[in-house]
Amino acid sequence: MDHLIEKTINTRDIYKGKIIDLQIEDVLLPDGGKSTREIVRHPGAVAVIAVTEDKKALMVRQYRKALGKVITEIPAGKLEKGEDPLESAKRELLEETGYTCREMKKIASFYTSPGFADEIITVYFTDSLIYKGEQNTDEDEFIDVLELTAAEISELIEKEEIHDAKTMYAAMYLQMKYDR
Amino acid sequence: MDHLIEKTINTRDIYKGKIIDLQIEDVLLPDGGKSTREIVRHPGAVAVIAVTEDKKALMVRQYRKALGKVITEIPAGKLEKGEDPLESAKRELLEETGYTCREMKKIASFYTSPGFADEIITVYFTDSLIYKGEQNTDEDEFIDVLELTAAEISELIEKEEIHDAKTMYAAMYLQMKYDR
Repeated sequence: MDHLIEKTINTRDIYKGKIIDLQIEDVLLPDGGKSTREIVRHPGAVAVIAVTEDKKALMVRQYRKALGKVITEIPAGKLEKGEDPLESAKRELLEETGYTCREMKKIASFYTSPGFADEIITVYFTDSLIYKGEQNTDEDEFIDVLELTAAEISELIEKEEIHDAKTMYAAMYLQMKYDR
Repeated sequence: MDHLIEKTINTRDIYKGKIIDLQIEDVLLPDGGKSTREIVRHPGAVAVIAVTEDKKALMVRQYRKALGKVITEIPAGKLEKGEDPLESAKRELLEETGYTCREMKKIASFYTSPGFADEIITVYFTDSLIYKGEQNTDEDEFIDVLELTAAEISELIEKEEIHDAKTMYAAMYLQMKYDR
């Protein structure tokens, strides 16, 4: 696939933030031409499709400043430095919802915006939840926990309150898994 | 949902690029505390699930500098200024694959990374393709066009060559639609 590859000539660091960094890369194109690529560096993320005994999905409702609105998503968060993704997924589930679980398995991973960001999200599934108690979020995180039926998930997709890639993926996964 | 909302106190423009901009917002949290949000502004994108007469899915293989690897995706691109998403989807399909179509319908839209970016992608479906001729990509775009069976799609997901959110969503959509 060498006829597709771009080589980096120069990298400029534009910004180093608490969650993302921004770099501009000057690249040599496959035909010898030149271009620039704007690249957001991200530590990676995890998300959990968590299903209760009565087949409801655990979701979190939060305000997203980038969108300027409240949306409902599956529990998720970014990887801490050096953290194993499975441990990260269990930590985020507990922090955001107050649930831990007996078993959790990886079902998929995907890049969220391959055109400009290296963020990769690993998605886990669990249906062996154990309630531990109150959520314990970061000090700048404000989250409502919801338990949604299949019909409620469809309704929130219709209303565009469920409106992000990982949760739309999760909704379809649940639909296929439980044939609903 | 007022108990979740953050108010912007101040916005700083860090970078204005050809595809993305970066802003830092100082915010007032629901409990009166303060925090900052790193926000990538993006014009929005479109993607097309395009199925041939013999039920193969049109895909494009390209190098993604942000990931440092070649991946295979459904045809997609960013919105031009003021462009209608449906027109944008038809334009991208033609430019990247050489196909136009009789009918195209919206099946979903979703934010790709709601934690740090406002990018929203609208996904269309067509199974009424008409071949027009050679692809006609941007001068810094190098793309192979593929027509993939359901088995080939599964194989590429397994090999992590299909590895981005919109294409993983598309793969599940096709699996459900054609019960395969």
